[in-house]
Amino acid sequence: MHRMKILGIIAIGVAFLVIGILIGHFGITPDQPAWLQRMSKDGDPKYSQQLFQKIQAEEIRKNLQFFSSKPHIAGSTQEEEVLVNYIHKTWQTSLHGAKIYNYTVLLSYPNASDSNYVSILSVDGIESDLSEKVEKILSPDQNDSTVVNPFNAYSPSGVIVGDPVYVNYATVEDFHYLTRNLSMNLNGTVAIARYGKIFRGDKVKLGEMFGCAGMILYSDPADYVSGDLDRVFPVDWGLPGTGAQRGTLLQTIGDPLTPFYPSTSSAFFLNEQDIELPKIPVTPIGYNDAAKYLSKMSGMEAPGQWKGKLNITYRVGPGFASPFEKSKIKLYVKTYNIQKTIKNVFGFIEGQYEPDRYVVLGNHRDAWVFGAIDPSSGTATMMELSRAMSQLLKEGWRPRRSILFCSWGAEEYGLIGSTEGVEEMGKVLGSRTVAYLNVDLSLEGNSTLRALATPILHKLLFAAAKKVENPNPDEVRAGRRSVYDTWVKNLPSRHDPNIPRVGNLGSGSDYAPFLQVLGVSAADVRYTYDQKYSLASYPMYHSVYETMHLVSHLMDQGFKYHQAVARLWGEMALRLADDVLLNFDCVQYAETLRRIVKDLQSTYGPKLQEHNMSLDPIKEAVEGFHQAAKALQERAEKVNRENPLEVRKINDQLMQIERSFIDPLGVGGNLLYRHVIYAPNQHNHYVASSFPGLAAAMFDIENDPNQERRWQQVKKEISIVAYTVTSASSTMQDINSIGGVSMKY
Amino acid sequence: MHRMKILGIIAIGVAFLVIGILIGHFGITPDQPAWLQRMSKDGDPKYSQQLFQKIQAEEIRKNLQFFSSKPHIAGSTQEEEVLVNYIHKTWQTSLHGAKIYNYTVLLSYPNASDSNYVSILSVDGIESDLSEKVEKILSPDQNDSTVVNPFNAYSPSGVIVGDPVYVNYATVEDFHYLTRNLSMNLNGTVAIARYGKIFRGDKVKLGEMFGCAGMILYSDPADYVSGDLDRVFPVDWGLPGTGAQRGTLLQTIGDPLTPFYPSTSSAFFLNEQDIELPKIPVTPIGYNDAAKYLSKMSGMEAPGQWKGKLNITYRVGPGFASPFEKSKIKLYVKTYNIQKTIKNVFGFIEGQYEPDRYVVLGNHRDAWVFGAIDPSSGTATMMELSRAMSQLLKEGWRPRRSILFCSWGAEEYGLIGSTEGVEEMGKVLGSRTVAYLNVDLSLEGNSTLRALATPILHKLLFAAAKKVENPNPDEVRAGRRSVYDTWVKNLPSRHDPNIPRVGNLGSGSDYAPFLQVLGVSAADVRYTYDQKYSLASYPMYHSVYETMHLVSHLMDQGFKYHQAVARLWGEMALRLADDVLLNFDCVQYAETLRRIVKDLQSTYGPKLQEHNMSLDPIKEAVEGFHQAAKALQERAEKVNRENPLEVRKINDQLMQIERSFIDPLGVGGNLLYRHVIYAPNQHNHYVASSFPGLAAAMFDIENDPNQERRWQQVKKEISIVAYTVTSASSTMQDINSIGGVSMKY
Repeated sequence: MHRMKILGIIAIGVAFLVIGILIGHFGITPDQPAWLQRMSKDGDPKYSQQLFQKIQAEEIRKNLQFFSSKPHIAGSTQEEEVLVNYIHKTWQTSLHGAKIYNYTVLLSYPNASDSNYVSILSVDGIESDLSEKVEKILSPDQNDSTVVNPFNAYSPSGVIVGDPVYVNYATVEDFHYLTRNLSMNLNGTVAIARYGKIFRGDKVKLGEMFGCAGMILYSDPADYVSGDLDRVFPVDWGLPGTGAQRGTLLQTIGDPLTPFYPSTSSAFFLNEQDIELPKIPVTPIGYNDAAKYLSKMSGMEAPGQWKGKLNITYRVGPGFASPFEKSKIKLYVKTYNIQKTIKNVFGFIEGQYEPDRYVVLGNHRDAWVFGAIDPSSGTATMMELSRAMSQLLKEGWRPRRSILFCSWGAEEYGLIGSTEGVEEMGKVLGSRTVAYLNVDLSLEGNSTLRALATPILHKLLFAAAKKVENPNPDEVRAGRRSVYDTWVKNLPSRHDPNIPRVGNLGSGSDYAPFLQVLGVSAADVRYTYDQKYSLASYPMYHSVYETMHLVSHLMDQGFKYHQAVARLWGEMALRLADDVLLNFDCVQYAETLRRIVKDLQSTYGPKLQEHNMSLDPIKEAVEGFHQAAKALQERAEKVNRENPLEVRKINDQLMQIERSFIDPLGVGGNLLYRHVIYAPNQHNHYVASSFPGLAAAMFDIENDPNQERRWQQVKKEISIVAYTVTSASSTMQDINSIGGVSMKY
Repeated sequence: MHRMKILGIIAIGVAFLVIGILIGHFGITPDQPAWLQRMSKDGDPKYSQQLFQKIQAEEIRKNLQFFSSKPHIAGSTQEEEVLVNYIHKTWQTSLHGAKIYNYTVLLSYPNASDSNYVSILSVDGIESDLSEKVEKILSPDQNDSTVVNPFNAYSPSGVIVGDPVYVNYATVEDFHYLTRNLSMNLNGTVAIARYGKIFRGDKVKLGEMFGCAGMILYSDPADYVSGDLDRVFPVDWGLPGTGAQRGTLLQTIGDPLTPFYPSTSSAFFLNEQDIELPKIPVTPIGYNDAAKYLSKMSGMEAPGQWKGKLNITYRVGPGFASPFEKSKIKLYVKTYNIQKTIKNVFGFIEGQYEPDRYVVLGNHRDAWVFGAIDPSSGTATMMELSRAMSQLLKEGWRPRRSILFCSWGAEEYGLIGSTEGVEEMGKVLGSRTVAYLNVDLSLEGNSTLRALATPILHKLLFAAAKKVENPNPDEVRAGRRSVYDTWVKNLPSRHDPNIPRVGNLGSGSDYAPFLQVLGVSAADVRYTYDQKYSLASYPMYHSVYETMHLVSHLMDQGFKYHQAVARLWGEMALRLADDVLLNFDCVQYAETLRRIVKDLQSTYGPKLQEHNMSLDPIKEAVEGFHQAAKALQERAEKVNRENPLEVRKINDQLMQIERSFIDPLGVGGNLLYRHVIYAPNQHNHYVASSFPGLAAAMFDIENDPNQERRWQQVKKEISIVAYTVTSASSTMQDINSIGGVSMKY
């Protein structure tokens, strides 16, 4: 009996045990493995906060002090050794790895012992009014023997003597005014052009096309001084009359001797005579010098919009007025080209779950002189961001995806480092890069954030800007607590005043090869000045006066604007690197396409109709894109986050959208620019055209002698846009629909 | 007390329960979720066996009966309606979905009421010896009113009267023999060329280049009859003298009016006069007719290798011999071009875990006439394979990746359907296709398997061939149980007799746009005839005699060879679709590259050295590739199969290798062929050159008047190959190494 009892108890115990095991195994499980659980969760928001705290204004100040302490033009020892090694060592010891890449590329310099200048040459051969060969030293930190005097890269050397002509901004419209309205013959003249409106390389190209024998570029105070003419450096941030803007004239991107292939050791280098470089000598001067020549000119008084703010009567020429009517202007240029080694440095943080997806952050390193704004304000910020992230790593953070920092060389000469890098590593970067986030310079003013980005990144930009504290205490007091708040107030969208303006990406910085060759979604951010000044750029742009003094005394004393840019940049990177789903807004792309088509319809619609053409194929394609984008967004929202391959499928589709806009044949046959929706304007490489192939085909079409051929080109471009947009839609559609309509029956 | 006991028992029970729960939860778990477990396992081998069983020879026979019952030339009702709808309906009801795609493309036909012919025209204007306009009916199944008589697509129409010249195979060497060795002037002559050695389009192109006014293509029994001249159809498989080979002359692939873009409704169509089509009239004839003209020719007796098997004295001409010395040959061609709608049909099986990875199987549908071999023997096989897979689906199989069946239109005219399909859906197919497996025709003989493939697929091909039962009972009796066993015996590799030969992919079938435009790894398989016959192709190629009778009586009575091809094709697809890791052999690619370099070195090394060049940059690049491939293979072997993203990372790297060989600028600037390692030979589009850009640059370089330019081209091509191979290595390297060397410190 007792025995029975014991057995009974044991039986009950065993039964309970078995029940327990069953409950434990099936009732509580199926448990996901811990790694799978983590893999299905967005990055912890605490890391955003920690990153923001770790980004220190003072550290950025110290970085800028270091980077802008000496001139560091591409190809110099300071740039290719001191700074490169510093960055490499920093990243090598703080991130997961770092690497230096070398490229041998064609650069250009003025002759240090035989300076470029401009003068007036009398009929007797006497030179007068020589321009300054050196920019005057206005603060002690400019005094450095390695400063390279003002020049325009890739100008041929040569001595030109000719009649001066004032060509305003040297835009195609300006040249048309002179040649069509005034019937002026520009052959053999020396054009005096003011900087502004368009890329200087385009000015020179147009000058060549219209017959000019040389070109002098100067910065008019109308475009480079925001207030009174005495509010200039070092008292204020206006450009003094002694400053001149350096800059490249290259029309292409990358090393001109190795188009489309990297300038590595096994490269095939073209001969200089086989490539297209500027054919007329060019040099930049300051406005004190420009006034000497412009004030003596003859000819009609320049139209109102051609007048700058010099205290002279602007005349178009050609030639000088009495008593100098027999004098010529002389342009003396000894600029030369030379192959040199330039370097990129990469720093890498390896992602935990998707190491083969890269969030790429980039900034160029080379400057024309001290570069305290361009680019070292960006470099200082990037180094601080990488330091802050390395701190996070120490505290246990590990991003889902990899993060790649890129310090590019020789950007100033024509995006050379980034383009060569993309050419060398395009297969890797093209298939793995989630997005490219560029900061060329952190600030060129402190009025508001300014951003360029493809539409897919707008939402992410806005969300990040909302998270970043406003660096302007006055704005905070006015109730605008975030970077976003001031942005939307000071720079609202032209289409919707309730959101901030985001510009299109041209080829102004290193995002161009990523967007235009690889089709990687990209953005570029900085703080900018008040738009009311209508400046051509920040005044000290590419002059010797871009010094630490300018930044730390006149533009960002507490480095709070730098800090805000670093935080914004870091937050965008964190979201792209850490969140399960890519924060890409495909519907925004669709809506932007709709707006572009609407604008095109009002601009070109009637003209097209006259030629029995219409934008209907594009409209249809865009509507298809809109539907596909909405459907993809819905699928993204519903995705099972615990299935890594389902998530990856959606993310790959999101990544693919921008890539689908790439036409491997190039826009209008130009293989440097392949993005069918946005590419640099053919007459101004700084800005982007929408549907650039079509825009180029329509440009000035009335004046083309071969009407038939041009309208056929228009027809072809309409077809290419429609095809490309449809092709992009097909990548967004559900996986079982190949090429448009679902195959499900 | 009793109460205490009960409490004690309860306590013990609870304790046991808790222990049980703990054991159940932690002791047995952590369990992976079931889906994750399944996701980390290769496909069940039982499905291979089941698939093999389900593939029935009798079903293939019935399919072939249906598909070859009527002529189905591209653009005909039978082809674009009856067959298209049949396939679409079949797949729509048996697979997960199906879709038809339309393209409006330029096709070409002979004029049905004004036939092409050849004759002898006397000096008095009397025509004699007219060629047959219709191929003689030799078996009742050829009797069909929709047969299109022999012609060459895209020949211009025209009537040419001139002196005949016999140009052998019309290769560049043949033309050089006539013009250089014999100093013959070919201007205005009518070339009589025999089919064989090179693509007919290249013969015509060369004829044009060397001044011929027209060309007659005929099939010499030396190249189209394997035994005695009476062993011909319908008694045996030799080509009877009444048969003529149709075929396209197009030098490009895809619709010639819409290069690089799809011929969809919004396409921009070029005008015919703006594209490159053959400029001289061409027509094919049978050897009975050819003998009439060749036997009357004057001039030197043709060299030994120029002699065919006609019972005549082969003479090169020009002109006819006495008594016909004043007669000319007349070529009367009324072939015309016309835009028509052609169609592709897709059938889809959606993958369970990686639906966004496609294994693509393709075959073209259009035939010149009945097409019982080309392509319907392939179509019959594809339809059976899709039927067998649909049966598996019903029994619970679901592949890991998606499977896409493609029935291409208008392949015969120049891979038009597949090229337009790739142009339309390139963004989707290019980013998702794992591999493209083509079967153009299932068999052209029954001696051995013949395969073309990129090196990365060789291993998979061999493994599949080992699994498939030998369809030849004699071979099985001789101890060769598998398809592989006979393959390695009858067609051993030229480099290693222990493995079978695998050829390179030229542009002979629909794999070309996949490989050459998208960079998708590809293979093409069929059963072939004994190589000892040295035939130009299977004898009945593109003649009216390619009928069901030929296949079912003379070539594959039991349809066992068809069945073997279906099984092989199916097994390759299953492995690629079902296995966790892609069965891609990157080390084989490396070893092949090494061998190519070695061959190049012995062919070109000394010549290069004379010009101070070497293949060293390529050698270095190939060694780097080899190292990277071995390392990737090792990582693949060690990969944690339970982590889906780690597996995906490796698979994406494997997929990327072939894509890395694509140069978006095209090989030697030809945008139709972009694969730097293999592209169609510039003088014979049927076969592939290794390092085609370099091969083209070196070809006949001694005779180029501009030596400097040509050698610069050689230098450039060496650089491009070195760059491309290095670029491919970079995609294989571990994810933290960007561009070569690991960034790990």
